[in-house]
Amino acid sequence: MRIPATLVRGGTSKCWLFNSHDVPASKDQIESLLIDAFNAADPRQIDGVGGATSTTSKAAVVSQGAERGVDVDYLFAQVGIGDSRVEWGSNCGNCATAIALYAVSHGLVQTANGTTVVRMRNLNTGARLEADVDTPGGTLPAFGDARVPGTLATGVPVTLAFLDAGGGTTGAILPTGRAQEQLNVEGRQFTVSMIDAGAPMVLVEAASLGLTGSESLAEMSQHVPLLTSIRSAAAVQMGLREADSPVDHSVPKVGVVGAARDYITAGGKSVAATEYDVAIRTLSMHAPHPAIGLTSAVGVTTAAITPGTVVHAAIAGNLQPDSDGARLLRIGTAAGPIDTTIVSDLATGSTRIGLQRAARIISESILFTREFTLEAAAISA
Amino acid sequence: MRIPATLVRGGTSKCWLFNSHDVPASKDQIESLLIDAFNAADPRQIDGVGGATSTTSKAAVVSQGAERGVDVDYLFAQVGIGDSRVEWGSNCGNCATAIALYAVSHGLVQTANGTTVVRMRNLNTGARLEADVDTPGGTLPAFGDARVPGTLATGVPVTLAFLDAGGGTTGAILPTGRAQEQLNVEGRQFTVSMIDAGAPMVLVEAASLGLTGSESLAEMSQHVPLLTSIRSAAAVQMGLREADSPVDHSVPKVGVVGAARDYITAGGKSVAATEYDVAIRTLSMHAPHPAIGLTSAVGVTTAAITPGTVVHAAIAGNLQPDSDGARLLRIGTAAGPIDTTIVSDLATGSTRIGLQRAARIISESILFTREFTLEAAAISA
Repeated sequence: MRIPATLVRGGTSKCWLFNSHDVPASKDQIESLLIDAFNAADPRQIDGVGGATSTTSKAAVVSQGAERGVDVDYLFAQVGIGDSRVEWGSNCGNCATAIALYAVSHGLVQTANGTTVVRMRNLNTGARLEADVDTPGGTLPAFGDARVPGTLATGVPVTLAFLDAGGGTTGAILPTGRAQEQLNVEGRQFTVSMIDAGAPMVLVEAASLGLTGSESLAEMSQHVPLLTSIRSAAAVQMGLREADSPVDHSVPKVGVVGAARDYITAGGKSVAATEYDVAIRTLSMHAPHPAIGLTSAVGVTTAAITPGTVVHAAIAGNLQPDSDGARLLRIGTAAGPIDTTIVSDLATGSTRIGLQRAARIISESILFTREFTLEAAAISA
Repeated sequence: MRIPATLVRGGTSKCWLFNSHDVPASKDQIESLLIDAFNAADPRQIDGVGGATSTTSKAAVVSQGAERGVDVDYLFAQVGIGDSRVEWGSNCGNCATAIALYAVSHGLVQTANGTTVVRMRNLNTGARLEADVDTPGGTLPAFGDARVPGTLATGVPVTLAFLDAGGGTTGAILPTGRAQEQLNVEGRQFTVSMIDAGAPMVLVEAASLGLTGSESLAEMSQHVPLLTSIRSAAAVQMGLREADSPVDHSVPKVGVVGAARDYITAGGKSVAATEYDVAIRTLSMHAPHPAIGLTSAVGVTTAAITPGTVVHAAIAGNLQPDSDGARLLRIGTAAGPIDTTIVSDLATGSTRIGLQRAARIISESILFTREFTLEAAAISA
């Protein structure tokens, strides 16, 4: 079986993108195909295209938008590492950035002169996103000069906006109805805010963990087991799973929140407390995230504008105004500060949370997969 | 710039293979291309096809053999990780296995009914290798049932033989003229054998390090700095570098050698002392190798048949006879025992060291690389 696929770097992730025409129709069959193509069973994914880290074991199936006002629909897959499973519960902003480039390069949208707008719907969560892709002269450049924290690599500038991200999974921005509460985990109490925006997320007050939120990645590694337990407990509180059902390691996202303070990035750069608004350290699956997932950035930003949350408290309710009249939140991650912009339309009540990203198409490939997927494809055809 | 490349898993490595027609002619220009295509500068290789581990940051340029009796020539590249460099000093047996498959699938050799023999020359070291690739009915299968220690993934069976591997780099199997000696490093003395077969290799008696040779990968991690210093010192003794010249992290290979004893593999399987002959733990660049590099296996095997070496001492000179009359060495690696066969032709004095391997073609790709490589290619064209 020969499956066309495109490898695109979006921000700090690599995503393998498939056209829905080239893969089976059912999610179960797509899951079999991805497990095989990535060699998900192997902890090093040595017999497949996976990169054996959470940020390089990602895929999406992209199709022409099925609804008016949507250019492309996509189904995001977090492919297992040493685990023959795919987690379908989340969205990925970095992959959405990659998909915007793919949509332009594969003709799923008409290229405009200057900036091409790609309106996307994430089929996992129903999230709506809009990407502005740099297309000078009506052409998608192969390379660009834009950078994101977490890598020195440059790419094509893409502005990614999450539209009305609140309540996408659970139906409410605050699924428990409370902006802040105590969560009991392993006999201890932690101060948390559970929020659903971008992705479901549990944000833990750093002080209640004995942390600051500006720890190094190595220090964060030591807290992965406890944060994994907190994620698991929060999933039940947020209605994402029953107490006795299996744990999903991709949602809710989990973050540690502290007040801004001087710190050193993973790249060795000093960041002063005045250069950002709130300190955040998150996990990506079972490891500290080198920067922050974009859906997590949306969650943190939504928490920042929601009175009573641990983020709102950490910034004392203060947001920076940016030059266009939007508000700006500067999130201090282990890779450096990442800015989000918040534009609220008072007339419609809608909110857009935007991020500056960069993406690059790395390769166009044909993947060879096992024959059972051929049969699966034949069944679905 | 669009460069065709093929991703092939050989044994426990992934290798990106290029046809010499598709890349610049000069090694410097190929180096620029690989640094760019792999995003070598980034520690996670996030903007390229590299896998950010030593076993997944490999490439080779393959061409029709330039000499009689050689089907394909190849130049092997160990691409840097967070380091914009390529190390050209070594060969890679896993990639040679991958290249054998590539040679058959890309028509560089004529496919035979049953087994296709691919005669290869490694241009880095001059090493000669011969691969027997399973081609039932004169066709290369896409998949196979063969396995190697270190992964559960299956692939097409390939028998890889190293021909007269001794002295390939330095001109002598024992570059210092001694089978065993004391090496002074960081004020301590270590008992070592420095051997050049497959690749230059320094083999350290485990006891002189206070080790057994059957350590876990986690335990081995703690000894990486000392072993790196030993490698660096041995490079000078073996004539691979001047005392004040830069250190190459790919050669000599470095291994810890102990007598067979019961141990647990990285996969959790118990191995009894009676199931293998010699305990070996090696490094791959700056980390413990999950199994053993094939050129290192050739070095260990050559040491096993060379009286006076630390390996010969560890096995007390005893080798297993195999069913075909060849001799067999069972090397106990962290991934489990790996067998090598030794066939010596008394008439010609030539020696073949063979290994059972498995390989699979993962994808055929077009890689997008920066424009400077277009200019580079234009210059060379």
